[in-house]
Amino acid sequence: MTHPSQILEFIFAAIALIAIWFSITNFSSVKRILIGRPMRTAELNAQHNKLLWYIALPILSADLYSSVSYGPESGITELINLGSEAKWYIIPITISTIILLAILILSYIMGILAYPNGGGAYAIAKDNFKQRWISLVASSSLLVDYILTVAVSVSAALEAVSSAYPVVAPYETVLAIFCVFILLIVNLRGVAESAKIFAWPTLGFMACMLILIGFGFIDEVNHGFVQRATPQFGTVPDGLTLLVLLKAFSSACSALTGIETISNAIPVFREPQQKSAIKTYIALGTITSITLLGFAYHLYVRGISPDPHNTMLSQLTQYYFGHGIVYQIIIWFTFIVLILAANSTFTGFSQLAAIVAADGYLPRGLTNRGDRLGYSNGIIALAATASLLILAFHAHTNALIPLYAIGVFLSFTVAQFGLVKRWRRVKGSHWKMKFAINTVGAFITSIVAVIFAVTKFTSGAWVVLVVIPVFILGSIYVQRHYKAVAAELRIDLKTEHPETNRVITIVLVSGIHRVIINTLSFAKSLDQENLLAVYVGFDDESMKKMEAKWEEWGTPCRLLTLKSKYRSILEPLTRLIHIIEEKEQYKAQIHIIIPQFIPKKWWHNLLHNQTALLLRLWLIRHKDVVISTVPYHLKK
Amino acid sequence: MTHPSQILEFIFAAIALIAIWFSITNFSSVKRILIGRPMRTAELNAQHNKLLWYIALPILSADLYSSVSYGPESGITELINLGSEAKWYIIPITISTIILLAILILSYIMGILAYPNGGGAYAIAKDNFKQRWISLVASSSLLVDYILTVAVSVSAALEAVSSAYPVVAPYETVLAIFCVFILLIVNLRGVAESAKIFAWPTLGFMACMLILIGFGFIDEVNHGFVQRATPQFGTVPDGLTLLVLLKAFSSACSALTGIETISNAIPVFREPQQKSAIKTYIALGTITSITLLGFAYHLYVRGISPDPHNTMLSQLTQYYFGHGIVYQIIIWFTFIVLILAANSTFTGFSQLAAIVAADGYLPRGLTNRGDRLGYSNGIIALAATASLLILAFHAHTNALIPLYAIGVFLSFTVAQFGLVKRWRRVKGSHWKMKFAINTVGAFITSIVAVIFAVTKFTSGAWVVLVVIPVFILGSIYVQRHYKAVAAELRIDLKTEHPETNRVITIVLVSGIHRVIINTLSFAKSLDQENLLAVYVGFDDESMKKMEAKWEEWGTPCRLLTLKSKYRSILEPLTRLIHIIEEKEQYKAQIHIIIPQFIPKKWWHNLLHNQTALLLRLWLIRHKDVVISTVPYHLKK
Repeated sequence: MTHPSQILEFIFAAIALIAIWFSITNFSSVKRILIGRPMRTAELNAQHNKLLWYIALPILSADLYSSVSYGPESGITELINLGSEAKWYIIPITISTIILLAILILSYIMGILAYPNGGGAYAIAKDNFKQRWISLVASSSLLVDYILTVAVSVSAALEAVSSAYPVVAPYETVLAIFCVFILLIVNLRGVAESAKIFAWPTLGFMACMLILIGFGFIDEVNHGFVQRATPQFGTVPDGLTLLVLLKAFSSACSALTGIETISNAIPVFREPQQKSAIKTYIALGTITSITLLGFAYHLYVRGISPDPHNTMLSQLTQYYFGHGIVYQIIIWFTFIVLILAANSTFTGFSQLAAIVAADGYLPRGLTNRGDRLGYSNGIIALAATASLLILAFHAHTNALIPLYAIGVFLSFTVAQFGLVKRWRRVKGSHWKMKFAINTVGAFITSIVAVIFAVTKFTSGAWVVLVVIPVFILGSIYVQRHYKAVAAELRIDLKTEHPETNRVITIVLVSGIHRVIINTLSFAKSLDQENLLAVYVGFDDESMKKMEAKWEEWGTPCRLLTLKSKYRSILEPLTRLIHIIEEKEQYKAQIHIIIPQFIPKKWWHNLLHNQTALLLRLWLIRHKDVVISTVPYHLKK
Repeated sequence: MTHPSQILEFIFAAIALIAIWFSITNFSSVKRILIGRPMRTAELNAQHNKLLWYIALPILSADLYSSVSYGPESGITELINLGSEAKWYIIPITISTIILLAILILSYIMGILAYPNGGGAYAIAKDNFKQRWISLVASSSLLVDYILTVAVSVSAALEAVSSAYPVVAPYETVLAIFCVFILLIVNLRGVAESAKIFAWPTLGFMACMLILIGFGFIDEVNHGFVQRATPQFGTVPDGLTLLVLLKAFSSACSALTGIETISNAIPVFREPQQKSAIKTYIALGTITSITLLGFAYHLYVRGISPDPHNTMLSQLTQYYFGHGIVYQIIIWFTFIVLILAANSTFTGFSQLAAIVAADGYLPRGLTNRGDRLGYSNGIIALAATASLLILAFHAHTNALIPLYAIGVFLSFTVAQFGLVKRWRRVKGSHWKMKFAINTVGAFITSIVAVIFAVTKFTSGAWVVLVVIPVFILGSIYVQRHYKAVAAELRIDLKTEHPETNRVITIVLVSGIHRVIINTLSFAKSLDQENLLAVYVGFDDESMKKMEAKWEEWGTPCRLLTLKSKYRSILEPLTRLIHIIEEKEQYKAQIHIIIPQFIPKKWWHNLLHNQTALLLRLWLIRHKDVVISTVPYHLKK
């Protein structure tokens, strides 16, 4: 019997092993198979990788468009406790969502007009606010929300599948983490190349949704708009408060996340980039609005209720098409497009992290491009954190939703205020209109962010409101550290130059054999004078034997035998280092040469004591000594 | 909610972290707290640590005596499918077990007479057989069985507790692994010191068992030996075959494992060692026989049946004492003594592994004594493998029993035959009697081993019969490897001496700053002539800038700038190494000096690229170059 937790342990072990493997063997064949051949830096800006707008549309819209599959459901779930009379609220809530979507798209188009080369909330804030913490609010909240996007999208994808196949339900968590692992591999392979393949599923999902909605309308026309199983429009159920309504609205707004993808991705468009991006925004906004409204209308008309074991999209599809082939197609498209939403987030996250890291606010390793030109460290960090979230929340979408979307709206707000400031400063053509649009946008997104924080505070949003400030403080700490280090390392090219010192070389010997000849040859080639061989013995007998043998060998250099009462080489060696430092008044550089066996097969390492390795790790960390390792490659 | 698998993951993570911690920080305070201060080698043979025989008795008998708590139950479990008429067979089976015990103890006393300094089956076989594989049969089967002993004892301990507290049942596996972890820590602290404390629980358990048996007899005397709920003695149930009876007998014989502990442990006795050990054997044999027989008699008379959720010992105790304080005391003594049985196995395993490793048949690391003089690597290996077994068998004692005891009886057999051979060769006083005793012993143990293998083959024993030969072949392979390496490394002291060569020194520079001054100072102190600074740039611009700055700095040595198209330092560097090797015809020694940041706080490592570390790992493994690391300890 394979227990899910065993599969999980296996996956974790596999990930850990692969990570270690990658770190050690840079040219390994496994890596080559999974990740592909290394790519030249010059391949980065090749024009043939750039996208036409109608191809960019499905690629960049997976994140936003896929959320239609769970947005309306999240909204209605908040109201369902009030009884079925509350169901009609899905219509006004969806309409409010669409209005918010229109405002956001308009505001983002203003952003593109202001920054034709693209740039998300962080870049806009950085350009318009002197206070760096404001741009850190934008970056931190967006990064946190990207992590949530991956967790939510992948969880929703698996819920779609387990609606169709309930047998999958107990394995949702494990499978979700497996999906994240696959996304990790795909993204380490690089996105630009694979991106065009990714256009088709989103197009397919759009087509599915439009067919579903269209089919529903035709069905209704044929039946003369006979409403079935629906509550009366306009009835007010008992216990409905403004707070509940706002909470439902804010949950439904989770459908709007991912809207920033296009404006961040302007460099991927083929020329004219600015125009293409705006076209894409308008097209995407139109399609999304139609889908949201049509979907919500049918949910209302057919009186579908949320069910934790069967998504509303799955229920609606079953209503019209039964459990046949059309149902299967729609479910699998939903799955794929939600996975693609998570996929596009990988690019967004790693690029933003790289930009912020380049400014010194995040670990510099996030700016390294991997073999396939992606920002590997950011990609790995996102996969790891999203997996932990999925694990903690057992891949339940509705448990993750309360944490979600606050970050995005915070960053929206920062961006809008940044643009407002910019229009006032730069002005330019039609600036008053642009100013007005962004002022309205800023006003509305900040209200929405506050609504989110208040209505979802107790159901989990407080976590985000703690994490984001901690993230900001962490970023500030990181930058201070880098500045301090840079100041410490800075030198005056005119006055400061390398100085030569006396070097005292210590060769560790464990006996007299071929490895030691090899090591002593190197040591004597460097220096004949200040050379000292050190032998650490655990008892007097072995020390005397070594001294006699050394003499028999013709004393290639001075030998010092040290006794270790505690059977450790480290302790007498540190004592010796201390004595030399005192005697030389810290002026001489101590240089310790350690021989190291390199077995022919890696698992032979188990058969040889790796004292050298541990010794080196400790000494480098705690003492000001240079450690040289002389490898001896065993032939057998 | 805390799910058991989460606890498990936590424990694994904790063990892994502690292991890494120990390896890196040799003097760490955490290690000091858990393991204690390092001990001098001289403390090893201090006489005050030696034990008087009546103190050694409980300490060395935990393994054997504790098995009375599950041995009779394992036997009767095999018969219970035949219906309750089969229950009376517990009496003849127990009597057979006791006869076997007497034979074994007598044989082991012969062993002590032959080898007054002690020595288990491996040492006896090594001394008496020229064929080394025979001694490897003894050592391998015993090592495998020691692993099983830990798994069985700890599982049985937890079953005792969960009989009393069924609420513990779902967490048995996790708690069993936690117990192994505690045993690991205790054994890394060292056994001799803690051993005297360990005498009391075994004495207590012995007392409990004798009181339980005595109380039962008094009860029966008072009631005039009225038999209750028992099947007629001598009835033969349907379907009883010799095979089933032998299987029951072999399962009951799991109570006899641990008998070899005393003969392996002769050096721990106070003088006269030989006499003390024999006294201990006779005393232990007597107590164990009385307990087994008394326990089996009461189980029969009270008609107690095996129950997977309540051990038979627990049922019997409940019968006489209810669920009160006496019951609690007996259950907890059972728990502790079973844990102690596992504990004593740690010493046995690690000592045997060290002896075999000293002969070159197992990794040499097993002979290293840790800070507290225990063979740490053997202790860790045992804890790890036993934990895996517990995990795989979900801590079910009865699932582990079929694998158990074959190894022990195999090693018993090898030892007996060794002694038979010895008496024939050495002779000495009363040799014919000793010869006869060991011949009978050898004959009987080999029959028992065959019975075990045949009757339990399909229920798991085949695994052991595969693992032991693999283990033996592995041991032979290990010794061949060591011999081959020794031959490769051996040199002629007269003719082979260190030779000096030209050294070409390459310093990797990433810019011009304090770390680089530090590194160049060392490099120039070593060698002024064959010194080359290498800068790897990812684009032309950075390379030109570096060259200009280097000139401005006054060119401390020749600078070579290399371009990396794939953003990797490794690739241009290996190219350079190849060029130098070709040009110098592999005669010069290449020496690469790598600067390394040492941050003040360990987690600052996250903020600095550890390219140097990975580079070093790869180069050392794949190229014949010396790598020096020059640390620069950051102050901030």
